[in-house]
Amino acid sequence: MLDTTPRARVDAFLGRLDAALQAGDIDAAVDLFGTECYWRDLVAFTWNIKTVEGRDQVRDLLAQTLATTRPRGWRVAEDTEASEAGGILEAWISFETEVARGYGLIRLRDGQIWTLLTTMVELKGYEEKAGFTRPLGAKHGINPGAKSWKEEREEEARTLGFETQPYVVILGGGQGGIALGARLRQLNVPTIIVEKNERPGDSWRKRYKSLCLHDPVWYDHLPYIDFPKNWPVFAPKDKIGDWLEFYTKVMELNYWSSTTAKHASYDEAKKEWTVVVERGGQEIVLRPKQLVFATGMSGKANVPKFKGMERFKGEQHHSSQHPGPDGYKGKKVVVIGSNNSAHDICAALYENGVDVTMVQRSSTHIVRSDPLMEIGLGDLYSERAVKSGMTTAKADLIFASLPYRILHTFQIPVYDKIKELDKDFYAGLEKAGFKLDWGADGSGLFMKYLRRGSGYYIDIGASQLIIDGKIKLVGGQVEEITETGVKLDNGTEIPADVIVYATGYGSMNGWVADLVDQATADKVGKCWGLGSDTPKDPGPWEGEQRNMWKPTQQEALWFHGGNLHQSRHYSQFLSLQLKARMEGIPTPVYGLQPSYHKG
Amino acid sequence: MLDTTPRARVDAFLGRLDAALQAGDIDAAVDLFGTECYWRDLVAFTWNIKTVEGRDQVRDLLAQTLATTRPRGWRVAEDTEASEAGGILEAWISFETEVARGYGLIRLRDGQIWTLLTTMVELKGYEEKAGFTRPLGAKHGINPGAKSWKEEREEEARTLGFETQPYVVILGGGQGGIALGARLRQLNVPTIIVEKNERPGDSWRKRYKSLCLHDPVWYDHLPYIDFPKNWPVFAPKDKIGDWLEFYTKVMELNYWSSTTAKHASYDEAKKEWTVVVERGGQEIVLRPKQLVFATGMSGKANVPKFKGMERFKGEQHHSSQHPGPDGYKGKKVVVIGSNNSAHDICAALYENGVDVTMVQRSSTHIVRSDPLMEIGLGDLYSERAVKSGMTTAKADLIFASLPYRILHTFQIPVYDKIKELDKDFYAGLEKAGFKLDWGADGSGLFMKYLRRGSGYYIDIGASQLIIDGKIKLVGGQVEEITETGVKLDNGTEIPADVIVYATGYGSMNGWVADLVDQATADKVGKCWGLGSDTPKDPGPWEGEQRNMWKPTQQEALWFHGGNLHQSRHYSQFLSLQLKARMEGIPTPVYGLQPSYHKG
Repeated sequence: MLDTTPRARVDAFLGRLDAALQAGDIDAAVDLFGTECYWRDLVAFTWNIKTVEGRDQVRDLLAQTLATTRPRGWRVAEDTEASEAGGILEAWISFETEVARGYGLIRLRDGQIWTLLTTMVELKGYEEKAGFTRPLGAKHGINPGAKSWKEEREEEARTLGFETQPYVVILGGGQGGIALGARLRQLNVPTIIVEKNERPGDSWRKRYKSLCLHDPVWYDHLPYIDFPKNWPVFAPKDKIGDWLEFYTKVMELNYWSSTTAKHASYDEAKKEWTVVVERGGQEIVLRPKQLVFATGMSGKANVPKFKGMERFKGEQHHSSQHPGPDGYKGKKVVVIGSNNSAHDICAALYENGVDVTMVQRSSTHIVRSDPLMEIGLGDLYSERAVKSGMTTAKADLIFASLPYRILHTFQIPVYDKIKELDKDFYAGLEKAGFKLDWGADGSGLFMKYLRRGSGYYIDIGASQLIIDGKIKLVGGQVEEITETGVKLDNGTEIPADVIVYATGYGSMNGWVADLVDQATADKVGKCWGLGSDTPKDPGPWEGEQRNMWKPTQQEALWFHGGNLHQSRHYSQFLSLQLKARMEGIPTPVYGLQPSYHKG
Repeated sequence: MLDTTPRARVDAFLGRLDAALQAGDIDAAVDLFGTECYWRDLVAFTWNIKTVEGRDQVRDLLAQTLATTRPRGWRVAEDTEASEAGGILEAWISFETEVARGYGLIRLRDGQIWTLLTTMVELKGYEEKAGFTRPLGAKHGINPGAKSWKEEREEEARTLGFETQPYVVILGGGQGGIALGARLRQLNVPTIIVEKNERPGDSWRKRYKSLCLHDPVWYDHLPYIDFPKNWPVFAPKDKIGDWLEFYTKVMELNYWSSTTAKHASYDEAKKEWTVVVERGGQEIVLRPKQLVFATGMSGKANVPKFKGMERFKGEQHHSSQHPGPDGYKGKKVVVIGSNNSAHDICAALYENGVDVTMVQRSSTHIVRSDPLMEIGLGDLYSERAVKSGMTTAKADLIFASLPYRILHTFQIPVYDKIKELDKDFYAGLEKAGFKLDWGADGSGLFMKYLRRGSGYYIDIGASQLIIDGKIKLVGGQVEEITETGVKLDNGTEIPADVIVYATGYGSMNGWVADLVDQATADKVGKCWGLGSDTPKDPGPWEGEQRNMWKPTQQEALWFHGGNLHQSRHYSQFLSLQLKARMEGIPTPVYGLQPSYHKG
């Protein structure tokens, strides 16, 4: 080849892929993948969220999807450049399928695909109206009887759910429901968001008063409207609450606040849900075609059943109900648990002069916020990244392009570095009796989040309070709760006026058990986790987050949730799956995962 | 010179300017300006908004400001390129002064300055916290007794205006007051915005229901938070109202809604205002050091005094009080006036089946929205501009860099083109009896806006209704109002159940007369207009908008207003002037304009 720029080489490679796929020559296409290879597809080929690993799985995916998908036009994406480093040739790619336009990231090693990310961007004929195609707003010309924008919005609010039915009902109006609702609005999918609280943002506002986001601003943008440049790195909970409230309003979401979902059932024949909600004392029956649980991946409180809890004479509550330190002055508070909430709650209590003891039941992964932000996220989500030209959209795709099977191998060195950097800090914690871990394989915080959604604290100061003995630390298992405190299995008795159970959250299919029935919850199985066969993430390996943002074993039932990053990123793919179904576009699901574990 | 790229040539030129200025060699500096030259300074040199024209004025400006300003470090701005076209060498420039950092745009012709724009970007030591310096939000570490963000905000809201005094009071919480308030907040200038309406955005919401912005979205962004890509081109009034309400909240403005300013007076000895406001039935006395009128450049209704008005038996109101067409079905409405509001109101009435007549008293400039957007604004404010890399900040500066003295010469060809393009449209209007004009010198809409703020309609459909006779048109002067209608000087009598006076707005110093006293209003003089000596813009030539965003003849009294573009752009310069005064930075004003006309 005369032309050997990275871009030209990737383009030539994509030409071969394009030719093989258009010819239906699966063998030739598979030959373009390396022996070790990973293809992650977000909806574009599979109408699923799926990673296939190795040539056999690639072959199977192609065999089952190629005829209906009819991919074509593979090329290095417009206005991007390919790059080469460490023997890996990397490029942004674009392509289209029979029904959609796609975008992705390819990495070639030795002239073959090592990793391939394919994502659906938009459905042909159903593109979002933005930029050049944004709505006009004003109705120019002659419009006898024209309704104003306000009149149309008011009419929609008055009739949707009554005279007309939403196509989608989203249960839960936190960041997940709101981000998804915004995407669906742009896709003209009639949607109602059901939220028990009074105002959008209340799910943040109602938590303990010292709470701030643990993720930095660059990681947290919602779709369509970025936080401004003066927005704090770690937004205080009430500030993020206000932002969500505004966002809900300006994105024109049909947000039913102060509304409680009472019961839901699916009519397999009519392909329709019946969702009974209570709104303003009135029972209303909604009949959507699709039902999304956006009730919070950390939303369903996991209250333990300790012996003797019923006889405790003080106040006891789950961390999600903890009001903050005001009102506990002069009292002895025991916090059971040693993850994020436990640390935040203990620190706020200490700061307000309350006597507080943390009970650590099992080892915990601790990482200080600063190095985590700099070393863990800095290349993609930071001011430095923005300055170097990184956009949120690009960062999300790079993040998504690393296969879960090998993600830990990229993470281990990060945490090795942090361990070394902060060795005095960790020695201090150990000296104070704190039991540390770094995840099952030393891969640290992010893998713990993906695998089990728990087991860590991003340190913003509480660890020093533990090192200094200002937050008292006791290790052990809870044997029982007495009338006056907590008794551990090592015989220790801790007197308490207040017990806070910072004992985490259950799987999201628990909400299905509450609202639909146990059989449906069991049919769907546990949500979250990769199947890594590490603590609290039992196998088998699934290679994607179980049941999240993709079809489940229950038709027309979906789960949406996670942190702000996931709410932003995956709402794109869930909204496209829902829109396609509304428009009657065929959506043959490849590799629908069996359900595992009842959650 | 070996290196002859445009950038290198501008850099070499700036090196000479830098040397001359640092040496205090005013002659040498003046020699770098052409015989025809314009230097527009936004605060950086003059602590004023000022254009000097020709070498003598440049010399005077330098003679009076050089010693205190001490400009230095002139160079082509980082990450920009210079360009050359039509014999003009053009470049973005940066520089600094003793107290500030500056940015600007220079145009060289024959190796000398033709136009120079210098603007103040930030005060050294008082930079806004954004990007790399954005606040942390979370309070990491140990903070005994730490207050949460919410508690701090609530405390501020509770104490400001009572236990502590704001440095600035802004009267009027429309787009102008809000944009300025946002900038001042970022600069840590304690500010209260006083607004008579209940909610931010009500000044839009309360206008006639068909109203949409006449300016397109790219021109309308507020500081810090852009409208999203799906925002309509011409936002409906209630939608922009909602946006302003959210913006006020998330920018954390101290916004006193449902508050009426009763009286204000300035104590020259104490250098302090006494501002009496009524809020929730309570009279509160505020004592700010600076008082800004942001009460609306189109806010003070100009209700004419026609003979016989008092005896009219129907309903009559100013256009600013017009509720929209509902409720007028079956009635005869006469709208007196033929500018934007008159056209919008007539069109909405017609659309709702109301019999409506427009009374045209004098010729009006009409331009259809489409060509105005495309030909008039498209290079700077459009999706096409965004696509080509134009940013709002750059567009604002290019816009600001064209000297008002010659701006009409750039505008005349634009309107010549539109006149030719739409010749059938204009012929139709004339045939219908509509009296057209193109501004005093054929320079069209934007010059009319700058000179007088009136005299035009951006056509979004009403003109066709006039051409078709659906809005009835009558020309003439109002001789008197009778019991049953309007009588014109040509003898025509128009029966009316309702009369709408779309008769425009008075000068902003009228608010000063109402709130302070007539003497102060007269001392300050008329606001707005360039002094072009064209209709409704009497001379002498001032070359900037009179009294807007800059010091006035009344110490500590300021005016802020205009469209969304001006609210965004000039709030930067007004906020810096106020911040400097708060911090005790010397702000010697160059060329404080005398007052003209009592308004």
